[in-house]
Amino acid sequence: MAALNTIKSNCRKVMCIGRNYADHVTELNNQRPKQPFFFLKPASSLLLPDEGPVLRPSGVNMHFEIELGLVIGKTIRDLDTEDDAEIEQYIESYILAIDMTGRNVQEEAKKKGYPWSIAKGFDTFCPIAGPISKEKLTDPHNVEIYLKVNGETKQQDNTELMLFRIPRQLSDISKVMTLEKGDIVLTGTPKGVGPVVTGDVMECGMRINGKEVEEVKMRVE
Amino acid sequence: MAALNTIKSNCRKVMCIGRNYADHVTELNNQRPKQPFFFLKPASSLLLPDEGPVLRPSGVNMHFEIELGLVIGKTIRDLDTEDDAEIEQYIESYILAIDMTGRNVQEEAKKKGYPWSIAKGFDTFCPIAGPISKEKLTDPHNVEIYLKVNGETKQQDNTELMLFRIPRQLSDISKVMTLEKGDIVLTGTPKGVGPVVTGDVMECGMRINGKEVEEVKMRVE
Ligand SMILES: [Mg+2]
Ligand SMILES: [Mg+2]
Ligand SMILES: [Mg+2]
Repeated sequence: MAALNTIKSNCRKVMCIGRNYADHVTELNNQRPKQPFFFLKPASSLLLPDEGPVLRPSGVNMHFEIELGLVIGKTIRDLDTEDDAEIEQYIESYILAIDMTGRNVQEEAKKKGYPWSIAKGFDTFCPIAGPISKEKLTDPHNVEIYLKVNGETKQQDNTELMLFRIPRQLSDISKVMTLEKGDIVLTGTPKGVGPVVTGDVMECGMRINGKEVEEVKMRVE
Repeated sequence: MAALNTIKSNCRKVMCIGRNYADHVTELNNQRPKQPFFFLKPASSLLLPDEGPVLRPSGVNMHFEIELGLVIGKTIRDLDTEDDAEIEQYIESYILAIDMTGRNVQEEAKKKGYPWSIAKGFDTFCPIAGPISKEKLTDPHNVEIYLKVNGETKQQDNTELMLFRIPRQLSDISKVMTLEKGDIVLTGTPKGVGPVVTGDVMECGMRINGKEVEEVKMRVE
């Protein structure tokens, strides 16, 4: 299992699932998708725990989105499965990630039909923590992920609430583009997203059967 | 200067400029942008000359867009220049690329406010040829790029027609996200884009002062 700095330096794409928790779809007034919905973040947006704060670009309303992340261990191309057991072989490890989003930039892009790359792609817009081994995280569809801002819980939900489970996500992505060893997949965010400003402290983590997972505790300014 | 297969294997992002030639903006009924407009293609879409044909995903109306590409040689972050001489140091070499686009997928994304990642990101959707050295291509704002389909010229224009020149492109991108050594920047396509179907042959190339550049002649099925 590669260390977190190696995960960052080996990553060639970060593929994000959007609109994958029903209550989050509702809170942003979006339509519930009929199939997994995905977009790219650049590897240059990855931020390690010791690399300092998330930088807010001027004029940008910056939102947090806590997400369970997968580190791909083996090439996936044209996969077609809904079977949880079958996808294990393709996952090297798990991480926790914040899909930082310039919400006003994204809203403008959505209105004008522009790409999302800028809203999602600023430097520092993808803090990550971990990794967690597959031995420790045996069921990715049954972990609680949470994010607090200045001590107040903003997001806290179980990944069992995903609209499209991980086998379907990986299958659909891999029919469009090959997932390579080292790529990262973010599996979507539960409800509760919101803004942070410079100086706010985000604390995130994960619980398995109610027990805190120390490897992915993350504190980001 | 890295060889083309090394350029492919080292590339972590392909950043594309959209709407950068006035007549192309008009032909797609788009608005002329007030600033450079850009989006990501995944490195997994890169296709080398010996890797076979562009694959048309079923149901996708596949369009070609011939573009001059830059291979980044040195980290660019927060650059602010309009000076052609100043950006030379950041460019390792030049390539020719086809920004293949699922036009119907993109049109639907634009209408619905969805990201462009799928329309632009299919495997094989970024054929490349080259590289050409900076010694040979001394003025990137004065080369003719062309693309023929089944022998018929579809695109043929000089890069002097770019709405935003390369220093401005690199400056604007680098204020959003760091450009790393090995990244590729595609500088936009001139007028004449159109569909190809399986079996069509695209022949592309570049002329400097009317003289064919052998390094980037490309034939893609
Ligand atoms: Mg997200
Ligand atoms: Mg996009
Ligand atoms: Mg293009």
